[in-house]
Amino acid sequence: MSQSTDSESDSAFPPLPNSRRVYLEGSRFDIRVPMREIALSPTRQPDGALVDNEPVRVYDTSGSWGDPDFRGDPTQGIRAVRRNWILERGDVEPYEGRNLAPVDDGYLSDTHARTAEADGKLLRFPGLRRQPLRASNGEPVTQLAYARRGIITPEMEFIAIRENTKLQTAREEVRMSPDADRNSLFKQSPGESFGAAIPDEITPEFVRDEVARGRAIIPSNINHPECEPMIIGRNFLVKINANLGNSAVTSSIDEEVEKMRWAVRWGADTVMDLSTGKNIHETREWILRNSPVPIGTVPIYQALEKVGGKPEELSWEVYRDTLVEQCEQGVDYFTIHAGVLLRYIPMTAKRMTGIVSRGGSILAKWCLSHHKENFLYTYWDEICEIMAAYDVSFSIGDGLRPGSLADANDEPQFAELKTQGELTERAWKHGVQVMNEGPGHVPMHQIRENMEKQLEWCHEAPFYTLGPLTTDIAPGYDHITSGIGAAMIGWYGCAMLCYVTPKEHLGLPNKKDVRDGVIAYKIAAHAADLAKGHPGAQYRDNALSKARFEFRWEDQFNLALDPETAREFHDETLPAEGAKTAHFCSMCGPQFCSMKITEDVRRYAEEQGLSEEQALEEGMKEKSREFKEKGSEVYVP
Amino acid sequence: MSQSTDSESDSAFPPLPNSRRVYLEGSRFDIRVPMREIALSPTRQPDGALVDNEPVRVYDTSGSWGDPDFRGDPTQGIRAVRRNWILERGDVEPYEGRNLAPVDDGYLSDTHARTAEADGKLLRFPGLRRQPLRASNGEPVTQLAYARRGIITPEMEFIAIRENTKLQTAREEVRMSPDADRNSLFKQSPGESFGAAIPDEITPEFVRDEVARGRAIIPSNINHPECEPMIIGRNFLVKINANLGNSAVTSSIDEEVEKMRWAVRWGADTVMDLSTGKNIHETREWILRNSPVPIGTVPIYQALEKVGGKPEELSWEVYRDTLVEQCEQGVDYFTIHAGVLLRYIPMTAKRMTGIVSRGGSILAKWCLSHHKENFLYTYWDEICEIMAAYDVSFSIGDGLRPGSLADANDEPQFAELKTQGELTERAWKHGVQVMNEGPGHVPMHQIRENMEKQLEWCHEAPFYTLGPLTTDIAPGYDHITSGIGAAMIGWYGCAMLCYVTPKEHLGLPNKKDVRDGVIAYKIAAHAADLAKGHPGAQYRDNALSKARFEFRWEDQFNLALDPETAREFHDETLPAEGAKTAHFCSMCGPQFCSMKITEDVRRYAEEQGLSEEQALEEGMKEKSREFKEKGSEVYVP
Repeated sequence: MSQSTDSESDSAFPPLPNSRRVYLEGSRFDIRVPMREIALSPTRQPDGALVDNEPVRVYDTSGSWGDPDFRGDPTQGIRAVRRNWILERGDVEPYEGRNLAPVDDGYLSDTHARTAEADGKLLRFPGLRRQPLRASNGEPVTQLAYARRGIITPEMEFIAIRENTKLQTAREEVRMSPDADRNSLFKQSPGESFGAAIPDEITPEFVRDEVARGRAIIPSNINHPECEPMIIGRNFLVKINANLGNSAVTSSIDEEVEKMRWAVRWGADTVMDLSTGKNIHETREWILRNSPVPIGTVPIYQALEKVGGKPEELSWEVYRDTLVEQCEQGVDYFTIHAGVLLRYIPMTAKRMTGIVSRGGSILAKWCLSHHKENFLYTYWDEICEIMAAYDVSFSIGDGLRPGSLADANDEPQFAELKTQGELTERAWKHGVQVMNEGPGHVPMHQIRENMEKQLEWCHEAPFYTLGPLTTDIAPGYDHITSGIGAAMIGWYGCAMLCYVTPKEHLGLPNKKDVRDGVIAYKIAAHAADLAKGHPGAQYRDNALSKARFEFRWEDQFNLALDPETAREFHDETLPAEGAKTAHFCSMCGPQFCSMKITEDVRRYAEEQGLSEEQALEEGMKEKSREFKEKGSEVYVP
Repeated sequence: MSQSTDSESDSAFPPLPNSRRVYLEGSRFDIRVPMREIALSPTRQPDGALVDNEPVRVYDTSGSWGDPDFRGDPTQGIRAVRRNWILERGDVEPYEGRNLAPVDDGYLSDTHARTAEADGKLLRFPGLRRQPLRASNGEPVTQLAYARRGIITPEMEFIAIRENTKLQTAREEVRMSPDADRNSLFKQSPGESFGAAIPDEITPEFVRDEVARGRAIIPSNINHPECEPMIIGRNFLVKINANLGNSAVTSSIDEEVEKMRWAVRWGADTVMDLSTGKNIHETREWILRNSPVPIGTVPIYQALEKVGGKPEELSWEVYRDTLVEQCEQGVDYFTIHAGVLLRYIPMTAKRMTGIVSRGGSILAKWCLSHHKENFLYTYWDEICEIMAAYDVSFSIGDGLRPGSLADANDEPQFAELKTQGELTERAWKHGVQVMNEGPGHVPMHQIRENMEKQLEWCHEAPFYTLGPLTTDIAPGYDHITSGIGAAMIGWYGCAMLCYVTPKEHLGLPNKKDVRDGVIAYKIAAHAADLAKGHPGAQYRDNALSKARFEFRWEDQFNLALDPETAREFHDETLPAEGAKTAHFCSMCGPQFCSMKITEDVRRYAEEQGLSEEQALEEGMKEKSREFKEKGSEVYVP
């Protein structure tokens, strides 16, 4: 974090235009749910009168970084909003914790690590290092365990408020005219939900119930108090994950922290740190202390580094140590490829693209080398016990996911999915929260089968898929090939979508790629929410469409997922400031505009005080003459 | 075309990497179907031996511009490949044609137009001006009329060859090993086609039959002999259209010609010239003389310019004159908003976004002003007669399409769709080819209803939709919001997808936007072909996936829809030339790679000569030991 004094790394990004941070308070003062409130300009009615438009509130993942009152910098970390809730439950204790070893960051000795520090290659997080917490009485300290006991945690209440975005927006309907339903922002099409059942209002009890059933998870390690509660489940808003991380080849700690803050600015609901190579521990420390969203990892990546990159050298001891290390740091969910069973591996030999999951192939290599069953499977119960003591959620990996359309929905993929289901039930017995990972590369017509089998075999645990990519022929555009599949599987019931950036298959994402990936996936998730008929989705589309129709250009930009790009694109064609208040656009020019004509249609209907039927029946000829006289000058250049 | 001597405008773009133009000859020497053949590098087998990979042929829309032997420039136009076929049928005659009027280009007088020419604002196309052709014996000269009479035209044969892309690629399967089905490029998932019935091999007779039934069209004005035959129908490859055109606010003729050539380079199957403002006639002339793909227009746009931009001044006479003008120039299909009936217009008053189609609102305004039925509807039979004499196809417009999710699938939209069906049948009676336009903004769960109703009400005429956009909240990214909907409706049976660029709702597309829009829509169309199980689709995905798996980086780039971007993105992370032959990538680095491990899994299975079951049953412990000894060094850094 060598540039930690630079202004960009130093503080929050500037707020999105016309937006302010608001907090909604829950039943206690320290439940403060952030929303972004977008102020709108008034509507100019046909008679020239101005009518206010209520501001629109939207779900906000940016945490402290989106709060202009927060003068933080990444060397100090962000607010620990959950700390009190965790402590006051009285079921955790601080303890000494594991000693940091040089190998945690890929160094062979203390000397090695210190040299790297002296050379500026390894920068230790200078902020607060808390003692780790863990369960104190041998009982799971998970949101699942609380939910089963009927306890509504502050996390659950926070989520209930957070998921009711729509209800937080003014209930008063904003109208341009007395017409009752024309401009209702809450006009909503019913949707088709494939068995999901989203209530009109999310209550804390509903959150608790969904978690208790295992249909939703709240990733929330007790050692990541900076994390603002969020929920992953198919009866809630569809979430998205952004991957980032160092690799052996490129990038640095500060770049990754910067990408994390960038990802949550644009709406990432969780972030996975997939770092490999050196400085894994410390990169993660920086990310966790600065992240308002749950952080996921694939612990086998770090374990592999600890054994010099040789899968066959992996052991339960090294892996276990890595799990504890990451639990103590505060990772919220672990991808664990325990479903890659020895007997499934040869099934992949006939594939077009074999095993493409990094975790999956590490385990395959280990299994073949030792001719033993996957040790993650063998030690599953032990793993569950560890995770229950910190409330780390499972993201059961899909190590045998298809890497090409030719391999989609094949025998090894579905064999592993069944095992994921078995592992899910076993984890639930330990009180651990679970979601399941899914593919990958799947043509459109084979997507639904993935969702249906997962629901059936994995007992409705949340599904979390990568894409899927619906064609293999567009490297450079895989945020699009996969955005198509992601939107569809989200509609069918997938709870979280792992983003794919334009760099997929080609390289590591930079900041532009992260934004492109996040926005493509916000689109997919939102399209899915709309198709499901989620009551907290369409109001934003309606507000934007109304602004668009009324030529409130600034409002159209500001309500967009990416206001900066929308404005920039508009200005490329019509840069003048006046063009943003003009009642026309570059597509048709000032003389003629289709939206303008519709205004005339409406004004006509309103001025005449006629219903549509009447207007036609009573003979529009006369009215038509009047209209022509009154309205024609509108079109004179 | 002031920069016509610049090298970029002057000749073909450089060929795409490792590609050459090949022509497949039909039953006569002048049926020469272009394909792009992508040469691949050999596969290096585990034993080090090199095995050739057959080149892959792909559908090519770039016409003469994609032929390195063509030394043309846009001031001269391209080859008239269809000229002889049109003449030899003996049913057309050249005639004097309509006189070019200054108002055709938006000028008030000859003096005005000449001043514009002198000022360089209007550049006349300097190349060949042929006498227009029209039907000579009062019978329709349409592909539909020929098909009904059982005639297989050269156009139909050309299309049959063109649509069999897969069969033109080497039938010999390329294998990395003796394993029969592992690497077959023709491995294919069956697909789900919603009633479409795509044969394994497209025959000329099949083409004829589909055209005769009205299920497919071949847009092919007898005055656009430069157009290479292509077909639009749901039993063929899904096609895409790219819109471009001047507006009153911005851009120039040469920019639009350049965008057309750019669009067909990336795969646009048709191009619509939506120019408004000045120079409409001449812009179209330049585009037609240089376009190897069918050109569509919305004639009411030009008619409106001729009456000074005032919809109420439009008349049948002006419109008729414009139709003839464009028929004589060679426009291949016309969007005509004849379904916007007077009685549907008041239905739009309650909408969130009224009438957003430019054509639709022009007609609405006309209808209200005159209190008369839409004159395009009134004069439908006359319009059909004109179009039959030149073989211009209908694209019956959807002037009342929804402009927001809130208005999707509503009463006025579907009322118009029913009328589109009535108009389709009437056009067929005149022997005119027809497709129907569709929306617009539609959430995912309402897309299928659009396709089903269109098939039913419009008697299986091809459907041609704009997107649809699946959410309204992402201006700046509407190629993605709409790419999702386009892929889905293509799967359900939509025959052609009208692209949306990132500038939609914000401004006019530049070259980058055109490419982004075309590639997003090539993805959508291809994803749809795959989901339908089109036999000519998956071989390219398979070839690319095989290249990816084998670390043939260059082949992966070259097989991509956009090889330039794929290579550029790769090089951002690993620019060294060596990295493109390396058996690793930036995602995991040189020491460990999941694809490498899969190779080991395979090699192991092969070396042992065991089937998967045997391997397990006979006890892999022994083998495992051997493997460890033999293979472990692979992973030593």
